[in-house]
Amino acid sequence: MNGQNLRSLEHEARARLEPAVYDFFAGGADDEVTLGANESAIAALRLLPRVLRGIGEPRLGLDLFGTKLASPVFASPTAFHKLAHPDGETATARACAAAHALYVVSMAATTSLEDVRKVAPEAALAFQIYLQPDRGFTEALVRRAERAGVAALFVSVDSPVFGRRERDLRNGFTDLPPHLACENMRGNDGVVRSITFSSSASWDDIDWLRAKTDLPIVVKGIAHRDDAAIAVRLGVAAVMVSNHGGRQLDVMPAAIDLLPPIADEVAGRVPVLFDGGVRRGTDVLKALALGATAVGVGRPILWGLAAGGGEGVARVFASLDDELRRALTLCGLGSIGEASRAIVMAGAAR
Amino acid sequence: MNGQNLRSLEHEARARLEPAVYDFFAGGADDEVTLGANESAIAALRLLPRVLRGIGEPRLGLDLFGTKLASPVFASPTAFHKLAHPDGETATARACAAAHALYVVSMAATTSLEDVRKVAPEAALAFQIYLQPDRGFTEALVRRAERAGVAALFVSVDSPVFGRRERDLRNGFTDLPPHLACENMRGNDGVVRSITFSSSASWDDIDWLRAKTDLPIVVKGIAHRDDAAIAVRLGVAAVMVSNHGGRQLDVMPAAIDLLPPIADEVAGRVPVLFDGGVRRGTDVLKALALGATAVGVGRPILWGLAAGGGEGVARVFASLDDELRRALTLCGLGSIGEASRAIVMAGAAR
Amino acid sequence: MNGQNLRSLEHEARARLEPAVYDFFAGGADDEVTLGANESAIAALRLLPRVLRGIGEPRLGLDLFGTKLASPVFASPTAFHKLAHPDGETATARACAAAHALYVVSMAATTSLEDVRKVAPEAALAFQIYLQPDRGFTEALVRRAERAGVAALFVSVDSPVFGRRERDLRNGFTDLPPHLACENMRGNDGVVRSITFSSSASWDDIDWLRAKTDLPIVVKGIAHRDDAAIAVRLGVAAVMVSNHGGRQLDVMPAAIDLLPPIADEVAGRVPVLFDGGVRRGTDVLKALALGATAVGVGRPILWGLAAGGGEGVARVFASLDDELRRALTLCGLGSIGEASRAIVMAGAAR
Amino acid sequence: MNGQNLRSLEHEARARLEPAVYDFFAGGADDEVTLGANESAIAALRLLPRVLRGIGEPRLGLDLFGTKLASPVFASPTAFHKLAHPDGETATARACAAAHALYVVSMAATTSLEDVRKVAPEAALAFQIYLQPDRGFTEALVRRAERAGVAALFVSVDSPVFGRRERDLRNGFTDLPPHLACENMRGNDGVVRSITFSSSASWDDIDWLRAKTDLPIVVKGIAHRDDAAIAVRLGVAAVMVSNHGGRQLDVMPAAIDLLPPIADEVAGRVPVLFDGGVRRGTDVLKALALGATAVGVGRPILWGLAAGGGEGVARVFASLDDELRRALTLCGLGSIGEASRAIVMAGAAR
Repeated sequence: MNGQNLRSLEHEARARLEPAVYDFFAGGADDEVTLGANESAIAALRLLPRVLRGIGEPRLGLDLFGTKLASPVFASPTAFHKLAHPDGETATARACAAAHALYVVSMAATTSLEDVRKVAPEAALAFQIYLQPDRGFTEALVRRAERAGVAALFVSVDSPVFGRRERDLRNGFTDLPPHLACENMRGNDGVVRSITFSSSASWDDIDWLRAKTDLPIVVKGIAHRDDAAIAVRLGVAAVMVSNHGGRQLDVMPAAIDLLPPIADEVAGRVPVLFDGGVRRGTDVLKALALGATAVGVGRPILWGLAAGGGEGVARVFASLDDELRRALTLCGLGSIGEASRAIVMAGAAR
Repeated sequence: MNGQNLRSLEHEARARLEPAVYDFFAGGADDEVTLGANESAIAALRLLPRVLRGIGEPRLGLDLFGTKLASPVFASPTAFHKLAHPDGETATARACAAAHALYVVSMAATTSLEDVRKVAPEAALAFQIYLQPDRGFTEALVRRAERAGVAALFVSVDSPVFGRRERDLRNGFTDLPPHLACENMRGNDGVVRSITFSSSASWDDIDWLRAKTDLPIVVKGIAHRDDAAIAVRLGVAAVMVSNHGGRQLDVMPAAIDLLPPIADEVAGRVPVLFDGGVRRGTDVLKALALGATAVGVGRPILWGLAAGGGEGVARVFASLDDELRRALTLCGLGSIGEASRAIVMAGAAR
Repeated sequence: MNGQNLRSLEHEARARLEPAVYDFFAGGADDEVTLGANESAIAALRLLPRVLRGIGEPRLGLDLFGTKLASPVFASPTAFHKLAHPDGETATARACAAAHALYVVSMAATTSLEDVRKVAPEAALAFQIYLQPDRGFTEALVRRAERAGVAALFVSVDSPVFGRRERDLRNGFTDLPPHLACENMRGNDGVVRSITFSSSASWDDIDWLRAKTDLPIVVKGIAHRDDAAIAVRLGVAAVMVSNHGGRQLDVMPAAIDLLPPIADEVAGRVPVLFDGGVRRGTDVLKALALGATAVGVGRPILWGLAAGGGEGVARVFASLDDELRRALTLCGLGSIGEASRAIVMAGAAR
Repeated sequence: MNGQNLRSLEHEARARLEPAVYDFFAGGADDEVTLGANESAIAALRLLPRVLRGIGEPRLGLDLFGTKLASPVFASPTAFHKLAHPDGETATARACAAAHALYVVSMAATTSLEDVRKVAPEAALAFQIYLQPDRGFTEALVRRAERAGVAALFVSVDSPVFGRRERDLRNGFTDLPPHLACENMRGNDGVVRSITFSSSASWDDIDWLRAKTDLPIVVKGIAHRDDAAIAVRLGVAAVMVSNHGGRQLDVMPAAIDLLPPIADEVAGRVPVLFDGGVRRGTDVLKALALGATAVGVGRPILWGLAAGGGEGVARVFASLDDELRRALTLCGLGSIGEASRAIVMAGAAR
């Protein structure tokens, strides 16, 4: 690994991964319009610095769900880490723990949540789930998450049906190789179930879930301000703005364009999490300034993992934190809490 | 045929067709500015989804001119299907019938309307005409359409003169090969007339036509809201927003940009049909959301036909319907009637 | 010549001309920003047609300076026609006469105005001059123009200094070859003077000129509406909006963007002429719709001349008139006078 | 040297310089977004000329800090001139003196300010510093500047931390070669200190500095209008709008986009200096028109120096002054003071 930045980690990862696996991680739905827009839209924003603020060293830390984090950057849930590197999710977890960063373990992890916890007993973990039509199975998962001591439950609400990713169709990439499995989908009977995506899921399911657990619930995949309002009204612990990395509905707006109206709507009543297109510390700062409390990265974690296992993931956090620290300093901001919308300007369409 | 989407069908078609024939189908007027704008303008729009709506399976069906259709996607009139595939319009008709989709047979079909009907007795057919200065000939055509049991008459009003397509001039593509003919232009005498384009046609001709037939009349090629208003006042059954696929006046606005003001003007008094640049189910949904009742595709039908005959045309409908169903699901819409302008956003000009 | 359009004539011209001569004609000032913007800005505009207007054949003719012209398209003044073709300005003049189009002969013509008139006794000619510090010389030129029976005097006001064209500097193109000369600059003594560009010229010189001649005076090179207002107040016969084909001040706005405010300012009191980036009949129609009375083409005349002498110039007028006629027909306009701003829309910035 | 313009000087410089040195001079922070935006944003602006103003020869001169300058173009501070050419800063100084242009010597010069003054006793010099945590060292520098008779002290306020330039990281370019040093950082003990960048610097340091010297103080690197207001309130002699050539905080707005609000804020109370992306005389005029009193160039000085030593730097001033003179003439402006915001238009986003 000799990457100067996240981009070079991606290049290394691409060189190491089987093309079909690279495509599975890198690709998006249909024409990948949203995939591209996520990065270009956030890159097009500009930051307007102040000078001579005498800030000293800026502070990156925050409290989230009662957990102390060293940085607002967190690992968004992504599937199949063992496809990126044999160490899989355990490497990711150790690196996150070392960085004091939140790791949202995916329901589609190739390591069970229990095994993840085992290797990283101090890590700030959260767990992501898709609501399963079999409520008994969902409830069992929630119990496992509780026992694993996760800080929050991220419920993906942007997947009433599986997004169509044409790279995978072209590559014939349909499933995990036989030696790997979605370990969180393994029932008591030892059988691994498929994840079901259901267009019948509704806000009633969120109500049901809230009644079943005291874990903080984050609805992940909110795009419309009115849905954020519903979520807050139903008592969720946080909303997460995301378009699933452009992998579900292609032609959705760039994630960063979804953030300001939702931040306005939520108006600080609960944290607003965000992911989509973040590749630089300045991107993190832009999202914070537009109302995000914490900022997730998905694919970069996978590139780090593929490029260098746990060390590669550590590099991702080190790189983003270092860049974020420099961006805050250059903007004259003493802490992430000082970022406000006033420092963000639209870039000219030139 | 192994196309993942309409784009790959076009590639297959291009590989199979004689270049001059491909160019005749693919090309537009002059510099093809409008041709390109049709696709890029609709692609640039964004869809903003809602979540957790519990919609189940979305419904695509609708009633149009008293006819039940399984999908809002229909086959816009296009000329010379036998140039695309020896089976020509009969293959198209069978595929449309199987898909329960409307097929608007072209006046410039290489199969007579009667022969089209013969192979597809249950198909939802409509018939497209250019008003001929010889009103007797026009009337005879209308009678044939009535006898063929078409659901509606589409009158093209965007062709007071033939568009200048420089690809055809460069290729020396001037006419059909001798074994093919515009069969609907064959008179009782067996002689095939040329289609006449006349700049003397006026709204009086629409009045005249309405008096001559009880068939629902659709004026096709409306670009200006004031013309939509005139059409509705004169009692047409529907207006169709179209710039003729960029083949008539180059530098016309992209078709999708014409739709909202016309939908506003018509205000639901009659259906508003639309074509121009639709290549994805999300494009169909965008047009519906902006006010279209049904959405035509022209060139994709020809690419399907060229790539695989009737099976290729079936693939076009299957692909668009599948994509539209997924787009509705991902947007949280239970039926095409729930699409509204609120879900459409302009994409950033980045 | 087998050009389908003006673009193909340029390709032919480029193939025939010595590169340094091609560059002299084709080039613009500095970075050629304005040169490129002229074409791209007019191309980016859209036309919104009306249908079923029953217009029949549209009329292109107009009266200008008491002269009947068959078309609003005219030949803008351009230098050194004999560099494009040995027949030079006489070929241009004959072709313009045959097309019943106005030809504005350049002060920097390689044929004297008298010789131009001799070969085209019926042509609608005008004469372009730069105001010379030697008023006696200027006055002598005006007398020659009067004797040659020109319809108007075009005074270039955008050249207080010569534009810097880096193509010519790179090519070492500094002057005409010895066998050619600016024949209109030949004094009674047979000596050819250089054209002087003076930053001391002022509106007083226009006053002086008006007092010296009854010829209609057109100020050519107006960019600012306030200058148009001054010109009208001083009694000019017409103003001409032009940025000298991007050859004087680079980074001027595209010519078409200058037109609407000036047309507003002039408000029909005198004709507003226009040139800059017109390459299609639809471009002509756009300029007419935005307030131009007549529309000049510069480089296309030179490409026609280089590609085929007088026949090539004839091709330019035939092509543009044919395209303009088709554009009017497709827009539902019965004559050039019916073009109004309502038919022009900004193209999307996609 | 045979450059037609600054661009060709850069090409020559690139051919002569070691790639890592070229990259050090040419590069910017992170993704070089701001670096590119500086040039493209200023290039995208348009100038709207007036005609027939009878201005004669336009005047470029101005008074700044009580010093007469022949042109508003000045040499912005840039580091390490001996890396560009063995003659280094002395060549720059001589060329600036000959052009009667202001030269802002960098704290990171490879020639001491005293040696610069020695070779150019008549030059209009200014001196740029970063505020050092060791106030004694800063004060000693100020005394040296006073003794060298500089016209003003430019205090860089945009560098609370060093910008991260990935080209240098990739090239392993970390420091000057052993035979060169930052001569202004050499203490009385003969030892060269490193320049310290401190995020603890504040407006109090400006207050302290003002109390220590009567030299006019220019705060360089102002981006926000509120910071300009603070600076004026604290009694600075001028503010300088700059984003450090895109070398500090990447994703800052283009420098030219920062200028108008700051010029509004300052409202003529003190001069507003500017640099960022100026490559043409028309760029200088745009900045003047948007409120700049004088306009700096950074990299072009280095390209001139690398391409031809002092002669190359002279070429830069000659070229820009010549272009500025032509631009003023073509705009109908008799002096730089006549430039106003009214002549600047946004270019279309086409």
